Amino acid sequence: MADPIEFHFDFISPYAWPGAVEIEKVAARHGREVAWHPMLLGISVGKAMGVKPLLETPLKGDYIRHDVPRVYRYLGLPFRPAVPEFVTSPLAPARIYCWMREQDEPRARDAARRMLEVHWTEAVDVSKAENAAAIASEHGFDRAEALAAPNDPAVKDLLRRAAEDSLARGVFGSPTFVVDGEIFWGADRAPMADRWLAEGGF
Amino acid sequence: MADPIEFHFDFISPYAWPGAVEIEKVAARHGREVAWHPMLLGISVGKAMGVKPLLETPLKGDYIRHDVPRVYRYLGLPFRPAVPEFVTSPLAPARIYCWMREQDEPRARDAARRMLEVHWTEAVDVSKAENAAAIASEHGFDRAEALAAPNDPAVKDLLRRAAEDSLARGVFGSPTFVVDGEIFWGADRAPMADRWLAEGGF
Repeated sequence: MADPIEFHFDFISPYAWPGAVEIEKVAARHGREVAWHPMLLGISVGKAMGVKPLLETPLKGDYIRHDVPRVYRYLGLPFRPAVPEFVTSPLAPARIYCWMREQDEPRARDAARRMLEVHWTEAVDVSKAENAAAIASEHGFDRAEALAAPNDPAVKDLLRRAAEDSLARGVFGSPTFVVDGEIFWGADRAPMADRWLAEGGF
Repeated sequence: MADPIEFHFDFISPYAWPGAVEIEKVAARHGREVAWHPMLLGISVGKAMGVKPLLETPLKGDYIRHDVPRVYRYLGLPFRPAVPEFVTSPLAPARIYCWMREQDEPRARDAARRMLEVHWTEAVDVSKAENAAAIASEHGFDRAEALAAPNDPAVKDLLRRAAEDSLARGVFGSPTFVVDGEIFWGADRAPMADRWLAEGGF
């Protein structure tokens, strides 16, 4: 069995959901799994790069606000973000995901996928632990434990290490696809990742 | 006749040439012209955005160095940059382009296109005024005048105003395509611009 495609994402990134949808199509075409890797754009990546948040960057911030709904329309996805200005915290859902992943990776991935989906397409704010825990529960995880996970030092450490691991691999943007060690940044790079898989690199 | 597609580019940007090639295909499919607009990434845009140069940004710099040759391979373009680390000045070719454009826009565009092509695919450094002037000459412009143009205060002012005009339209990256007022940043957004033209927006 070939290695899974790594999907690095941050719940706060509006491009993460389109990226998930696109890379799943690519993975299906090539018989690969997708492994979900949480990252922390605004925390570890921003500090490592020494850059300010995207939405606060002159010119680029306005472009992003215009581009995000356009990308969803382009891909035929509904766009109903939980928070109008896209500013939220990824800590609760990302920690709950890390906690779930220790127990059962496939189910954890399905739950994380659903969290990302509802946050961006059904206006359910998964930065609120109770909303994230409800989805964990729908996927067979203990709801009370899920709700407590974001405050557990051991779980915090799981996410911290996951985010450091993404950075160490050279990942700095959300979404990023890693295909057999090759890094592709951005949802619109799914076609390039597709060709990479088809040709075994180029 | 419909408006031309605006192609905003900086000679220092390694993604500008792939962007030119891709947007020309899109323009041809829809019977549009491409109008070339010079911009100054490292000068006016960097100042307006308050960001450091891409190649000096941790993580992103390494990604760009790896990604640029890959984009050329992906599109089947030769990659022989004039300067290995991509750091050069756009002032001479951009000013010569502005000077040519005052005289004859179609020929000026063809000359600018050739300058961008040789800089990235034939290792001819057009940041050197003599190389840029030689190409101007091949396109019917006076070589001695072209060589003098980068030092002419009136020509400097043409470029300054062109760069300010790009910024005022919200353009901050190279390449950027503007299709009927809609801004698409990045060579890999040509397919989206294509769909925009096909559907009259979405």
